[in-house]
Amino acid sequence: MISVEEAKNSILNTTQNFGVEEIPFIKSVGRILKEDIVADRDFPPFNRVSMDGIAIDFNAFKNGQRAFKIEGIQPAGSKQITLQNSENCIEVMTGAVLPKNANSVIRYEDVEIENGIANIQIDKVNDFQNIHTKGKDRKQGDVLIHKNKLISAAEIGVLATVGKSIVKVAKQPKVMIISTGDELVGVDETPLEYQIRRSNVFTLVSLLERLNIPSETAHITDDKPVLKQKIAAYLQEYDVLLFSGAVSKGKFDFLPEVFEELQVQKLFHKITQRPGKPFFYGKTDTSNVFGFPGNPISTFVNCLVYFYSWYYKSVGLKVEEETAILTEDVAFKPNLTYFLQVKLSDKFGHLLASPIKGNGSGDLASLVNADAFIQLPKGETEFKKGENFPVIRYS
Amino acid sequence: MISVEEAKNSILNTTQNFGVEEIPFIKSVGRILKEDIVADRDFPPFNRVSMDGIAIDFNAFKNGQRAFKIEGIQPAGSKQITLQNSENCIEVMTGAVLPKNANSVIRYEDVEIENGIANIQIDKVNDFQNIHTKGKDRKQGDVLIHKNKLISAAEIGVLATVGKSIVKVAKQPKVMIISTGDELVGVDETPLEYQIRRSNVFTLVSLLERLNIPSETAHITDDKPVLKQKIAAYLQEYDVLLFSGAVSKGKFDFLPEVFEELQVQKLFHKITQRPGKPFFYGKTDTSNVFGFPGNPISTFVNCLVYFYSWYYKSVGLKVEEETAILTEDVAFKPNLTYFLQVKLSDKFGHLLASPIKGNGSGDLASLVNADAFIQLPKGETEFKKGENFPVIRYS
Repeated sequence: MISVEEAKNSILNTTQNFGVEEIPFIKSVGRILKEDIVADRDFPPFNRVSMDGIAIDFNAFKNGQRAFKIEGIQPAGSKQITLQNSENCIEVMTGAVLPKNANSVIRYEDVEIENGIANIQIDKVNDFQNIHTKGKDRKQGDVLIHKNKLISAAEIGVLATVGKSIVKVAKQPKVMIISTGDELVGVDETPLEYQIRRSNVFTLVSLLERLNIPSETAHITDDKPVLKQKIAAYLQEYDVLLFSGAVSKGKFDFLPEVFEELQVQKLFHKITQRPGKPFFYGKTDTSNVFGFPGNPISTFVNCLVYFYSWYYKSVGLKVEEETAILTEDVAFKPNLTYFLQVKLSDKFGHLLASPIKGNGSGDLASLVNADAFIQLPKGETEFKKGENFPVIRYS
Repeated sequence: MISVEEAKNSILNTTQNFGVEEIPFIKSVGRILKEDIVADRDFPPFNRVSMDGIAIDFNAFKNGQRAFKIEGIQPAGSKQITLQNSENCIEVMTGAVLPKNANSVIRYEDVEIENGIANIQIDKVNDFQNIHTKGKDRKQGDVLIHKNKLISAAEIGVLATVGKSIVKVAKQPKVMIISTGDELVGVDETPLEYQIRRSNVFTLVSLLERLNIPSETAHITDDKPVLKQKIAAYLQEYDVLLFSGAVSKGKFDFLPEVFEELQVQKLFHKITQRPGKPFFYGKTDTSNVFGFPGNPISTFVNCLVYFYSWYYKSVGLKVEEETAILTEDVAFKPNLTYFLQVKLSDKFGHLLASPIKGNGSGDLASLVNADAFIQLPKGETEFKKGENFPVIRYS
């Protein structure tokens, strides 16, 4: 038995590199960027009008002129025109290029226009006001998004702006999720009295979907030769195998033996934690094997704590640790790290964690009433209201 | 001009009901549940063995017996067998039905087995230990998930368990996202000096994807008859139209006029906020029209603040407000609600918001360096380090 920290280290020392692929930028939300995104030109790319109004030569205003004959119009998306006479003005639209020889924009709200003459109604005007000058935000060649960033809506806008219609992202692992256990029947079936429906594989599919990882699922009966043959094939084909069940001490818990016979290198089996103690982790040269215990909450918490961490490091994503504050005293006697189900809430910028009572690792429905786990360290038995602990969110 | 609060009220008073649809449960992550999910039987559905080991009649142990002949084996997924002789035992596996006449399970760790006899190595045994009794977690008919819950991985597990292979969820709105502005070219094109690439529509597509709303996009040139004809058709076909640009005072900002001519009821136009002031909102009998200002940050923040709120209420989802604590003093003079870009971080369970300097509403790239906005109220000009404000996360 090893500690949670040792288990995490072991897992983080055996990450994989799935490589890089190029995909359409609009499909890249939730993926990890694998190239620096550089400004293809200055932003803004020209002296950009930022208010609808008139553009003038500021010197004319400074010299006391207040009435400007409208010489022309500069819409957004049109070639730059020139203010021919410095005592005239040009009507300009937000997003337009500032006309040549103009250097100040006065918004329509501060102007009265009559008979083709714009009369300025304010006394204070600055040069280059309401002009977003070329290159003010970013210079051509500046890195706008650094490699290894998780792509969200903000990044999509930048990718579009610089013309990155195809973008390099981390390839996702190829994952097979396998349930075992002869007591399991399909979701569409009506279980006999001693059977239950498969659920952990679907929970795992959904937890991987949160990471934008597509996955496949299979069910194998508790028959050792069948298990061995199928798993041998999966180890060849997939980067990751996630199992739920058959890793404990039962007579039909064949997985540890099968893994050994298939030369899966065992990194550890069993962690001093609750729930999720009999977790098996191993690897081959090409595949990583996560053998989660079959209880629903055990599978759930181990996927979040171990598979998620392994995946983040594999694709190069740094994730900040978050903590939450206990709202009541909690006692936990066993010398184990305790992953406690909590409901999170906000109070004046403090993240509060209220314990949710469940009936142990089999009580899947209790997960629905919570939205996170907090990690209470091994070696202590009393956890006080007001103390803060690492939090693992899941909804 | 109306306040942010008035604008929000107006929007929340004009939500739509898109109806309900039935979809496969495994596709329902991120959707809003529209039925109560009820336990189809007790959970566990039988007295369930929760440790691998042997099952005995507790009375025999109480009477001093320590050696039990193994009479049979009860695997998970097999019909319940009967302990024929109360001085014998049955080997039982986690997940199995407790054999008839047995009422205590002793785990393998506490037993030595030799020649078909299990010798108990511990002195303390309780009746019903290591047995998860029928109905302990939930009773048949209990509501496991209430209507209007956002479905995540935990709910998927419960849906599978109760056999809900098809589930009722809120239908998503049919959304069209429209850009206008003759300065815009496609992402794949190389813009001329006075042009820029379309980006806001893609940002909006991604922001809607976060809500699992598929959307379509279109671009219309700044030509009033064309705008009118196309928008008339979209108003018929879509529940929601999202526009970016052409709602301000420019000579080619035709949208407000077009909306009026198409009998879109204007709820408001312009909010006392920065960025995102010239936001137009209106409706017809069948469609809601969000006219976001064309600056990237204006479109972004208005989608998060207004469209998101409108959508959540439309589908019946309650979202808790969250707040964060300013890490430095901020001064903001205009009498406007200020949506300040911030980077969030955690310190001992406190959510800290550090302001990110951008160059105003056109500086899309600055969104990448932040991950949220905080909402600083109108009417104040000094916001102090340590004060907390509502936060709107986006990544």
